[in-house]
Amino acid sequence: MIESVDVIGARGRVGSAVNARLLERGLVSTGHDPEIVLLCVPDRAIAEVAASVEPGPWIGHVSGGTPLAALARHERRFSLHPLQTFVRDGGQEQLDGAWAAATGETEEARGVATELAEVLGLRPFVLDDDRRALYHAGAAIASNYLVTLYRAAAELLAAADVPSDALEPLMRRVIENRFQLTGPIERGDWDTVERHRTAIAKGAPELLEAYDALARLTSSNTVLQGAPA
Amino acid sequence: MIESVDVIGARGRVGSAVNARLLERGLVSTGHDPEIVLLCVPDRAIAEVAASVEPGPWIGHVSGGTPLAALARHERRFSLHPLQTFVRDGGQEQLDGAWAAATGETEEARGVATELAEVLGLRPFVLDDDRRALYHAGAAIASNYLVTLYRAAAELLAAADVPSDALEPLMRRVIENRFQLTGPIERGDWDTVERHRTAIAKGAPELLEAYDALARLTSSNTVLQGAPA
Repeated sequence: MIESVDVIGARGRVGSAVNARLLERGLVSTGHDPEIVLLCVPDRAIAEVAASVEPGPWIGHVSGGTPLAALARHERRFSLHPLQTFVRDGGQEQLDGAWAAATGETEEARGVATELAEVLGLRPFVLDDDRRALYHAGAAIASNYLVTLYRAAAELLAAADVPSDALEPLMRRVIENRFQLTGPIERGDWDTVERHRTAIAKGAPELLEAYDALARLTSSNTVLQGAPA
Repeated sequence: MIESVDVIGARGRVGSAVNARLLERGLVSTGHDPEIVLLCVPDRAIAEVAASVEPGPWIGHVSGGTPLAALARHERRFSLHPLQTFVRDGGQEQLDGAWAAATGETEEARGVATELAEVLGLRPFVLDDDRRALYHAGAAIASNYLVTLYRAAAELLAAADVPSDALEPLMRRVIENRFQLTGPIERGDWDTVERHRTAIAKGAPELLEAYDALARLTSSNTVLQGAPA
């Protein structure tokens, strides 16, 4: 059972949510011997901060893209990456329902990460440290590029003098319907795709490269028949 | 006030939801003189079905990508495109909360389309027929390519032996947070982007073109600073 955690970076976006949840559970370290030191600092600061921590307690970070090697000085180490996007002052509720990647080099380390996830209200799965880049690329595509899609679509709607708010119920429903593919590419309606291309080339040419790359990917087996998972 | 609508294609995905809503409102035409004939048929069938309808009543279609010219024989014509994705047997509730593009060549025609939207529980906005391709391209990017993103991300997670269900809370939250851009590109962390590229090139090379196109678009002013709408 985890008894005390010292959160470094407790004012950051992820750290403030994590620290609030740990406070609620009575697990924030009050003394000088925390069981776990949890680094909620920017990715680029992890190695430096880790190097400043005296070895002894478990040490973990919450970065999706940073290998365990960044915690180089420590042997009792893990990472726990909440697969979620956080806003400042969003509160601990942001953790609820999110999954989290638990990484460790030993059964014991994975156990610490998994238990910490459960204490935080996250749903843990185990991630191998050497598959981290694949995982993190997938996470970035699903979240960052979702923003990109929305902003690209909003730009086209703006060019058509249509309010971009209209996109939100559509995008929510695509998720609720569990990502069923519909639309011109699914129907093989390439005339419509060509009309899109012509309109984009004229009205928002900077979007054409991404439109085309996504059209090709959408018509590939990977997407038309669904991803393997 | 709209008093009677004859839905052609009432068993289709959109038509069944529309017809159920009109039945509930007591507006489905029972005689031979409907006020409105509403074509809920596949895009490619619209022109042919419209040509078979005797001129007289208002005639409309519900396609986003089809110009009014497809209703060539008719002068009293409009279109009303629900900006939503529909599943079979999903029921009329699928209309709730969705926006819809109302198009007509006269004030009266736009009025009919707008009123029909309100009767159906849709939130109408006016769309010019000659900006339809821009609008429809935006709608396709937001909905169809959202599926593409998910499936691409799911493939990468599968390659990392991570359950793709883990993506859903993340993607929902991106929408709830109103599409705030976070992540490596927003931070200018190109080392992480390069690690993604290396992992994708090795583990799922068919995704690299779209990853790169979206990276370039994400780092452009259009996306970094938000769309103009």
